[in-house]
Amino acid sequence: MKIVLLVIGKTNEKYLETGIEIFLKRLKHYISFDIQEIADVKGIQDSRILMEKEAEQFLKFIKDDDFLVLCDERGRLLTSVEMAEMISKKMTDSTKRMIFLVGGAFGVSDAIRKRSNFILSLSKMTFSHQMIRLFLTEQVYRAYTIIKNEKYHNL
Amino acid sequence: MKIVLLVIGKTNEKYLETGIEIFLKRLKHYISFDIQEIADVKGIQDSRILMEKEAEQFLKFIKDDDFLVLCDERGRLLTSVEMAEMISKKMTDSTKRMIFLVGGAFGVSDAIRKRSNFILSLSKMTFSHQMIRLFLTEQVYRAYTIIKNEKYHNL
Repeated sequence: MKIVLLVIGKTNEKYLETGIEIFLKRLKHYISFDIQEIADVKGIQDSRILMEKEAEQFLKFIKDDDFLVLCDERGRLLTSVEMAEMISKKMTDSTKRMIFLVGGAFGVSDAIRKRSNFILSLSKMTFSHQMIRLFLTEQVYRAYTIIKNEKYHNL
Repeated sequence: MKIVLLVIGKTNEKYLETGIEIFLKRLKHYISFDIQEIADVKGIQDSRILMEKEAEQFLKFIKDDDFLVLCDERGRLLTSVEMAEMISKKMTDSTKRMIFLVGGAFGVSDAIRKRSNFILSLSKMTFSHQMIRLFLTEQVYRAYTIIKNEKYHNL
């Protein structure tokens, strides 16, 4: 299985990029994990139209048999162990690719919501869509240390 | 009112330190916010005894009239707006200092749990006690942008 973190625009803070790099390197031992950045949609003021344009970009990347996890505050809150179980289950069924999608500043359109196989909330609190990249990368890494029963999660 | 983030040991990742610095600088416009690092307790293997020693250090710092928020996975999940409301309420009553306490790798002892005025869960997911410093600093900053009705939270 491959895991992709699908996001909009570049990571614009160097410290987040550095943090993400640390977990990307560690994840290499466990899984093919990539961050796919969809280009920012420019010049649109209306947030609804913006989200629709972003959805078009996202949907071009998403294949029919991808398992799509939408990260959204209104989703289901999981513990790290439950998250590990979800990933583990997808690895043992025939899933080829698992995508974690983080929307833009305004969230995502209904088209993405409908396409999602699971809506995951990392926290009831709102975090910047840039910072969520770091959180999520760390959680996927943590999930693998849970699956492999390694020390990281319990320390 | 002052806000203190009370933690154990130095922030050992440069990227987290850099991220925290960004929000500390921004917070200066709103509130006196400090990070107080209690020295690591060395040479103790037993996690229960370690937590008790850490608690002693924490309690030396905490005054009777401090409003103590313990950050703990088993606490109450708040939205960013609810977190802002809690801070705002503390600013208008006679609270002199609000402390957000993040325990060590093993959590905190019962003594700290009993002293707490509120137990806050940032997420059902487990994050490293180092990374929580960044999340929490960002959330306190976000709370002030909510209180002041500034753009950050809605973007």
